[in-house]
Amino acid sequence: MLYFENDYCEGAHPAVLNRLMETNMEKLPGYGTDPYTESAKEKIRRACGCPEADVFLLTGGTQTNAVVIASMLKRYEGVVAAATGHVSVHEAGAIEFTGHKVLEVPGKEGKMEAETLRSYLEAFYGDGNHEHMVFPGMAYISQLTEYGTLYTKAEMEAISKVCSEYELPLYVDGARMGYGLACRENEVTLADLARLTTVFYIGGTKVGALCGEAVVFPKKAPKHFMTMVKQQGALLAKGRVLGVQFDTLFTDELYLKISRNAIETADRLREILRSKGYPFFLETPTNQIFVILENEQKKKLEQSVVFSFWEKYDETHTVVRFATSWGTRMEDVEHLADVL
Amino acid sequence: MLYFENDYCEGAHPAVLNRLMETNMEKLPGYGTDPYTESAKEKIRRACGCPEADVFLLTGGTQTNAVVIASMLKRYEGVVAAATGHVSVHEAGAIEFTGHKVLEVPGKEGKMEAETLRSYLEAFYGDGNHEHMVFPGMAYISQLTEYGTLYTKAEMEAISKVCSEYELPLYVDGARMGYGLACRENEVTLADLARLTTVFYIGGTKVGALCGEAVVFPKKAPKHFMTMVKQQGALLAKGRVLGVQFDTLFTDELYLKISRNAIETADRLREILRSKGYPFFLETPTNQIFVILENEQKKKLEQSVVFSFWEKYDETHTVVRFATSWGTRMEDVEHLADVL
Amino acid sequence: MLYFENDYCEGAHPAVLNRLMETNMEKLPGYGTDPYTESAKEKIRRACGCPEADVFLLTGGTQTNAVVIASMLKRYEGVVAAATGHVSVHEAGAIEFTGHKVLEVPGKEGKMEAETLRSYLEAFYGDGNHEHMVFPGMAYISQLTEYGTLYTKAEMEAISKVCSEYELPLYVDGARMGYGLACRENEVTLADLARLTTVFYIGGTKVGALCGEAVVFPKKAPKHFMTMVKQQGALLAKGRVLGVQFDTLFTDELYLKISRNAIETADRLREILRSKGYPFFLETPTNQIFVILENEQKKKLEQSVVFSFWEKYDETHTVVRFATSWGTRMEDVEHLADVL
Amino acid sequence: MLYFENDYCEGAHPAVLNRLMETNMEKLPGYGTDPYTESAKEKIRRACGCPEADVFLLTGGTQTNAVVIASMLKRYEGVVAAATGHVSVHEAGAIEFTGHKVLEVPGKEGKMEAETLRSYLEAFYGDGNHEHMVFPGMAYISQLTEYGTLYTKAEMEAISKVCSEYELPLYVDGARMGYGLACRENEVTLADLARLTTVFYIGGTKVGALCGEAVVFPKKAPKHFMTMVKQQGALLAKGRVLGVQFDTLFTDELYLKISRNAIETADRLREILRSKGYPFFLETPTNQIFVILENEQKKKLEQSVVFSFWEKYDETHTVVRFATSWGTRMEDVEHLADVL
Repeated sequence: MLYFENDYCEGAHPAVLNRLMETNMEKLPGYGTDPYTESAKEKIRRACGCPEADVFLLTGGTQTNAVVIASMLKRYEGVVAAATGHVSVHEAGAIEFTGHKVLEVPGKEGKMEAETLRSYLEAFYGDGNHEHMVFPGMAYISQLTEYGTLYTKAEMEAISKVCSEYELPLYVDGARMGYGLACRENEVTLADLARLTTVFYIGGTKVGALCGEAVVFPKKAPKHFMTMVKQQGALLAKGRVLGVQFDTLFTDELYLKISRNAIETADRLREILRSKGYPFFLETPTNQIFVILENEQKKKLEQSVVFSFWEKYDETHTVVRFATSWGTRMEDVEHLADVL
Repeated sequence: MLYFENDYCEGAHPAVLNRLMETNMEKLPGYGTDPYTESAKEKIRRACGCPEADVFLLTGGTQTNAVVIASMLKRYEGVVAAATGHVSVHEAGAIEFTGHKVLEVPGKEGKMEAETLRSYLEAFYGDGNHEHMVFPGMAYISQLTEYGTLYTKAEMEAISKVCSEYELPLYVDGARMGYGLACRENEVTLADLARLTTVFYIGGTKVGALCGEAVVFPKKAPKHFMTMVKQQGALLAKGRVLGVQFDTLFTDELYLKISRNAIETADRLREILRSKGYPFFLETPTNQIFVILENEQKKKLEQSVVFSFWEKYDETHTVVRFATSWGTRMEDVEHLADVL
Repeated sequence: MLYFENDYCEGAHPAVLNRLMETNMEKLPGYGTDPYTESAKEKIRRACGCPEADVFLLTGGTQTNAVVIASMLKRYEGVVAAATGHVSVHEAGAIEFTGHKVLEVPGKEGKMEAETLRSYLEAFYGDGNHEHMVFPGMAYISQLTEYGTLYTKAEMEAISKVCSEYELPLYVDGARMGYGLACRENEVTLADLARLTTVFYIGGTKVGALCGEAVVFPKKAPKHFMTMVKQQGALLAKGRVLGVQFDTLFTDELYLKISRNAIETADRLREILRSKGYPFFLETPTNQIFVILENEQKKKLEQSVVFSFWEKYDETHTVVRFATSWGTRMEDVEHLADVL
Repeated sequence: MLYFENDYCEGAHPAVLNRLMETNMEKLPGYGTDPYTESAKEKIRRACGCPEADVFLLTGGTQTNAVVIASMLKRYEGVVAAATGHVSVHEAGAIEFTGHKVLEVPGKEGKMEAETLRSYLEAFYGDGNHEHMVFPGMAYISQLTEYGTLYTKAEMEAISKVCSEYELPLYVDGARMGYGLACRENEVTLADLARLTTVFYIGGTKVGALCGEAVVFPKKAPKHFMTMVKQQGALLAKGRVLGVQFDTLFTDELYLKISRNAIETADRLREILRSKGYPFFLETPTNQIFVILENEQKKKLEQSVVFSFWEKYDETHTVVRFATSWGTRMEDVEHLADVL
């Protein structure tokens, strides 16, 4: 069986696991106060060109979104997100559970356009009284998006500019950050993010770690952030587990190097799909590939490949997703070519 | 430097880490639907003599308490706990963050006595109207307690009986479950817990895992428990990380075997402390040892040993805690003897 | 200055205030246990043809929505509402503050169509896993809607049928219930609502009371509902204030009678507007009238009449709302005719 | 039947109700933007000697506590209160429902002593790490307390001083403020409260109003306070109802004058009880009188008088409370003398 279902189907990159093994019996203090966590944070600061950043290591994506958003919003504020955003739809109401509304705006191929955000804010602060409404307290976008698309530098700067004008913190969900950074088409560096956002996270779970996401506040974290992490049950006793992993991923650019494998295998897969005439649901340069299958075709393919149902296209067609990761082998892509 | 500060200072037991290594590149489905998680659950059910149990794997202790408690309570209910209970004091208000009150009752050496609970419930349901009060919706105890003490079987049965009479779910926090089970003095087995409680958890973080706690509902989990886990940001994408660890810990009684090391080293340390005339703050049979040091003595000892401040005893004395774990080496205990 | 801004601009109907005066010095028990509250509930049960109903008196509309919704939903559930619904937009995130998501579906002139709800539910329970999503736990509609429109009996039955099929509780916000009931076009009686819904409320604040909304559970209220009311700060110590008011409003059909005045004055105003050629934004049979004004026209009118800005229509036109109430005098409508 | 059960058993003071009647048909804007509310606020500012104060009118006591506390605390903070405080025990978990812990400290006759608070804060900020604990974010006391006792000026200044030192906002629950102010023994004026606290409220529900509490922020309210009031369902559409009532109560010192009746009748009742040899449970100078009755005596008395059960004293005795109010008639006190 060939496996292209998602980008979190393997364990950790072997170098990460080896480092956990090597450091395993060292007796270290807990809750992220160990030297590996400190070293990881320092390397991440350097990678972001941002020596003053506050960096924190959390465990998973939904957790990170819930902790970051609920720590930054005031209680009368909500987070503005594309209606397709992960926080809107696929986190079981984790944001609302903390008392905050997700203020949905229309997205386009997974992205929130600067003009959409501006219109929303203009309307909110425009005519009429908004004292009985949820205040926009933060903008949430993903790089790369749930639809595998990437913000260009111009787009990211435009959205950042709108946020600045309205003093709205900008938060970038980077669950798949590595797979964005590794794209040939990518224009937005970690240093750009540090310059253009209030907070973003660099995903580990999907990019080489067993688990773990690195939250970066380029300027300053909210006061008592660690207590809020604890309050949401997101503080790992053995912080070393996250520290060692990110320390390894950010040594010698391992994070970027292993991400490239996902892109190279995806590029090859795109080439194969195109040559065989599969229609793309939307064009993406990343490790997420969306194609439209005839339902019969889909059924047949499922006998030898695992991929994701995305959505119904019409009565006789379905959109499906193929994903690659740091661990995808090129030979599996070639085998896939045989059955496509 | 000798290290007796806590029982989460090492990584994972080597067998656990090896198994993560061996299974690392297998492509597995996410969110706990992999075969290792299924196998771990089955072994845990067997260890609890409870083939019908619902078992779930979460990441850490505070998280587990917050998820279990907030999933079981109705919104007008609170959880009854000893005033010294971990959920009352050291979880940064994680329970209140989910909207529930911790109803504190006096504890005794970390335990909630059955009679204390009964009095509380009698008073609540007794004279007068309680419609304007938080309803007791669950009782929370720890085995072993924050004070290193153990409930006897009679005590556990007594508290379970009170709970049954008042139809109050009983929840046992087992962050250090292994170190209780491994005690010579222990009378309460996993099967007893399955018989006497509504839900309990078997701690991994402190007993051989990198992270992870196994929640056991001997009868049935609340409906849509997984969605609530997700809603609280506690669902690991790579559920295999927890599955493989618990599968290993519950193979050939590894969990119990490695726990014994903590008890044997603690027993030896107790012997040494006693022979040298150190006064014990309270008598414990577990891996947590509390002694009273003169402040000068404490200062001197800190130069060669890491241990925990517990509380001020009087102007010139301090209560400190020495903890052992599955990873404590007997030779370190003997070295400690030299400096005590 | 003529006043058509809203339907809560007067105090209480004089008969209501007189009754408060007459009963003022009686010494009565608190928290809704007084005989006037009991009598009010009994009269409401009778008006709904529903002798078994549980009835509760709360203070205001947003409060009632927040209490009812948060008392009925399980914590992993949200409330399905039209995107224009009051709970979605104009309650400052009161629902999210209690931890629940408002699941927005497209509305049509303020109404949620049965087919829209069915599609939403089919999609949710259809293809794919929904374990990571907020479960639909209740449907919320308003009779009459924020847009002044009314559900026909067929529409109400259709939506109730969808709810029944999916075991989804149906909640009707009746802030302006009286003004619906008093319409000539109205087909949905209180008895119909008792038959077709799980819970609804009969608004007092906008229909003759100083404050107060009567929540009707035709079958049974959630267990410990009063404690949840208290928990949300919605329990009035002097429950008599609400009891006496609703007792008066439901004596000799006062509620219905005074509602008719709003409709008669609105009908006359509609006639005037139509005869003068004002374009209607949408057709409504109730006390809410929406017309499109040229911006210049609007400016001029504002010098002698108070009305509500509703929304921008285009660059040169604005939608405004005229509202009548139980207290609107026909002579004021005629004066308005002079300045229109 | 004689009625001494509580101080909220009548409606409103007749002058208040008359004023509601007189202003009833005026068409006024909603949500507290009417001129009566503005006038009430201005008079309250003057009564507090505090022309810069932000004043808000809410509906009831539990609501006011929940709104004020949840609006001022940061999410990682709790409110420090005496274990007997109303927010701890009798508000159905309203504070926890908003996500915050009530940090209980021992009280003395209903009061929190300055030294108790200081010890608590010293311990919290003293030895050890408190990053995993709920931060004290506000102190809550009542003037007069649930036990009918009053803080002296020295006590109030002492507690205010501790709060200042620790930059801890001080909140005074004044549900029965009038009955404190009207005591001969009272030393703490509204101006003192304005000087010594961060926020306090002046109770109307128990002192002459149908409902209503006036929240006073002597310096400044939290930003967007009204939105938070709305978010908690505490914003009355017809704000005039509260405005007219407080405007009347603060005209010609009506609030103080009518409060004196409660004290005069309570003083006479105390005199009677003392002369007849009834033992007092604790000495109070206010409208709350606590005496110890033999259970037989209590049973007999209940045939002709309504009073409150307070708590069990011993097997054969019970503590009961007699309360007077602005509406208590001296002749009823004399009648009570006959049956005591």
